[in-house]
Amino acid sequence: MKLFDASIYSARRQALSRAMGSGILFFPGSAEQAYNYKANTYPFRQDSSFLYYFGFAQPGLSGIIDADSGKSILVGDDADIEDVVWMGPQPAMSERIQQIGADASITTQALQGWLKGKTIHYLPQHHADRIFYLAELLGKSTDEVKSGHSMSLVHAVIKQRAHKAPEEIDQMEEALYITAAIHTQIRKSVAPGKYEAQIRGIAEGVAFANQARLSYQAICTIQGQTLHNNDYHRLLKEGDMLLCDIGAENSMYYAGDITRSYPVSPKFTPMQAEIYDLVLKAETESIEAAKAGVRYLDVHLGAARIITEGLKQIGLMKGDTDAAVAEGAHALFFPHGLGHMIGLDVHDMEGLGENNVGYDDTVARSKQFGTAYLRMARALEPGFVITVEPGIYFIPELIDMWEGEGKFRDFICYDKLAPYRNFTGIRIEDNVLVTQHGPVILGPPIPKTRQDVER
Amino acid sequence: MKLFDASIYSARRQALSRAMGSGILFFPGSAEQAYNYKANTYPFRQDSSFLYYFGFAQPGLSGIIDADSGKSILVGDDADIEDVVWMGPQPAMSERIQQIGADASITTQALQGWLKGKTIHYLPQHHADRIFYLAELLGKSTDEVKSGHSMSLVHAVIKQRAHKAPEEIDQMEEALYITAAIHTQIRKSVAPGKYEAQIRGIAEGVAFANQARLSYQAICTIQGQTLHNNDYHRLLKEGDMLLCDIGAENSMYYAGDITRSYPVSPKFTPMQAEIYDLVLKAETESIEAAKAGVRYLDVHLGAARIITEGLKQIGLMKGDTDAAVAEGAHALFFPHGLGHMIGLDVHDMEGLGENNVGYDDTVARSKQFGTAYLRMARALEPGFVITVEPGIYFIPELIDMWEGEGKFRDFICYDKLAPYRNFTGIRIEDNVLVTQHGPVILGPPIPKTRQDVER
Repeated sequence: MKLFDASIYSARRQALSRAMGSGILFFPGSAEQAYNYKANTYPFRQDSSFLYYFGFAQPGLSGIIDADSGKSILVGDDADIEDVVWMGPQPAMSERIQQIGADASITTQALQGWLKGKTIHYLPQHHADRIFYLAELLGKSTDEVKSGHSMSLVHAVIKQRAHKAPEEIDQMEEALYITAAIHTQIRKSVAPGKYEAQIRGIAEGVAFANQARLSYQAICTIQGQTLHNNDYHRLLKEGDMLLCDIGAENSMYYAGDITRSYPVSPKFTPMQAEIYDLVLKAETESIEAAKAGVRYLDVHLGAARIITEGLKQIGLMKGDTDAAVAEGAHALFFPHGLGHMIGLDVHDMEGLGENNVGYDDTVARSKQFGTAYLRMARALEPGFVITVEPGIYFIPELIDMWEGEGKFRDFICYDKLAPYRNFTGIRIEDNVLVTQHGPVILGPPIPKTRQDVER
Repeated sequence: MKLFDASIYSARRQALSRAMGSGILFFPGSAEQAYNYKANTYPFRQDSSFLYYFGFAQPGLSGIIDADSGKSILVGDDADIEDVVWMGPQPAMSERIQQIGADASITTQALQGWLKGKTIHYLPQHHADRIFYLAELLGKSTDEVKSGHSMSLVHAVIKQRAHKAPEEIDQMEEALYITAAIHTQIRKSVAPGKYEAQIRGIAEGVAFANQARLSYQAICTIQGQTLHNNDYHRLLKEGDMLLCDIGAENSMYYAGDITRSYPVSPKFTPMQAEIYDLVLKAETESIEAAKAGVRYLDVHLGAARIITEGLKQIGLMKGDTDAAVAEGAHALFFPHGLGHMIGLDVHDMEGLGENNVGYDDTVARSKQFGTAYLRMARALEPGFVITVEPGIYFIPELIDMWEGEGKFRDFICYDKLAPYRNFTGIRIEDNVLVTQHGPVILGPPIPKTRQDVER
């Protein structure tokens, strides 16, 4: 159980308290989530905003910031003997409040009375059990709770969490060191005759050995054209490519999110190499373009243009590049967004609303297939950490559908796509800190040139 | 995605339909569960009763058994292009119903109309989101849904799932072969200077490599006296013992649940060896006692007597063994139950109610500390699979509390316990099939004699 210095949590809570000005800011900690029955739980994951303001990664706690008085209160109970027998000794609440610089603690039983009659702000809840909990606690209907979250609190929290402080960058660097160790081990293990699952299992092994776990369900597949492929039953064969989108969440719950695409044979085929180099060009040039003040939507569209331009040279696209991208023809091959914010959540703060995090008054969400999936579009600011993750995929079902519909015939060379039907997909991804002096790739270098990922 | 033959699911549904006689038996499949926000999900786990009757391990499906007509219906939708892009191609519903021998399928949109006006039986729901789902679907309040599950369905399902068929035993054997591979790798890896987490990480690696995962959060700790210890940050030192309670869930979601206790030094100390041999004696003799017709409560109490008798010989307990066990003095050292049913759930069917599974009219649940935790007490029947998992622990906080209260002074030699304060704990566990010809340990032999776990 690691915590920052108490002063860091105090300062974060005070900043939020000042930003809100008044009211009670209530942060219910997460509860254990059932796997196949209530007592068999998934590994516990604390709510990220609770972690940010109150630090503790255990269930059974909640936090209050009283923006009227500026004081903060930790809600929870001291362990009894049954807790000790089953869960081991726990710090007393009096010790916990010192660890995070809170002013007081109250018991879970006293909470309802304490909140009564006050103006309560809370964030949207992503676990259904917290809806029931808040309804009972606040004496509201579940419908009232679902619609009753505080938009002023949402915006204040996003404003604060979006800018990563130096101590947070340290944690993200650590998450990426562990992530790099996972990718190194994987790169050395890829070989024909192994199953995806054998490679996949390396990730948890290395994460655990580094007191970490994974920040999301790893993608480790020779069918990378399926964007969220969480199956691992396939056999690696000569000529396949293994797409690995795997990140560690370190012991303080900061996320890494790195994608590399490896040849299963020692070298890529010429066809694979050509597409690989194009994806890498889109990735490295997009990273260079990720400067403070630039809208991330424009970086995304820039990547789409690089991909379109390259596919034109290869002979798979044609026509005017700007027009193709404006109309969305590139999305046949690059059907997702260029990236998202990352921090305590791999899609940082997504539980507070994708559009609240990634969009603002200056940029509206596209409805166009492909760009519609872009989670982060607004102007970059120093302290933002984003993923940059372009890819090129050949999705047979999508190709057939679009060709059947006669879609984008002016931009897509459907007659040239037959040799690519089983190409699968390539994605390359890094995590990038926006600074006043330009973009910085976080973590150690993780091999990504074609020469470095080939054996 | 593995399934049994369609005829197996048909026969199971028909048996349940006959047992219920009438009404609509509705099995909502589980939904994805949020990790730190809605779209970042934990690995999906299908509801075990849905798996038993309808087989499919994907989200988005529900099942209906119409006990009036004897027919069964699979509820779900064919994949659209967006599903294909993100999740890959999926079997059509028409194909799915053939795979499990269902009579028809209906869409999720048609479900509400189909159910309207009918008598609906459903099981208790362990995920809060399913309460909201059923409330909307059935036009009831969430309180009505919570209290409205069908006890006749609960009892009929338990009666059926409690007796494992040969094809289920095959799956449990497979889960135990994978579990054995995990323990073998761990046994070879235990050494001073390693962290618990390094050993812990082996479990997922081996599970994944065998197309499996873990059936519960592994316990892998040098502080085994904390019964549900899910921390893995400690360093293994000479003289420590590593308690590993780890089981694989195979590709058809059957669970293994095996505990072994390893010395960190090559050999146990004499003090450890003495307690180890006593736990092993309690385990092997309890397994022999697990015969059809015997109440498992009596096997549990038999283990408590073996432990009490042994601790008397070592000089840590005294007085009359039967009286000590009847009053619960043994629970200072053996504070949990001897075991539980195991199958598709590691605590099989626990979501349907512990007492419904493990107790009946002939045996009431004890309120005594220790025996109160026993999940399975009723008479064993051929086809039951149970865990047998006695342990001996020295929990300093519990010893101090009981000694301070002057509890069981006639049975416990508190003055002899000082050398054992940091002993931690030992548990040994196997999974046992009850047959007409006696108990059978499932899976391959997993080393457990002292000589075999020492190096």
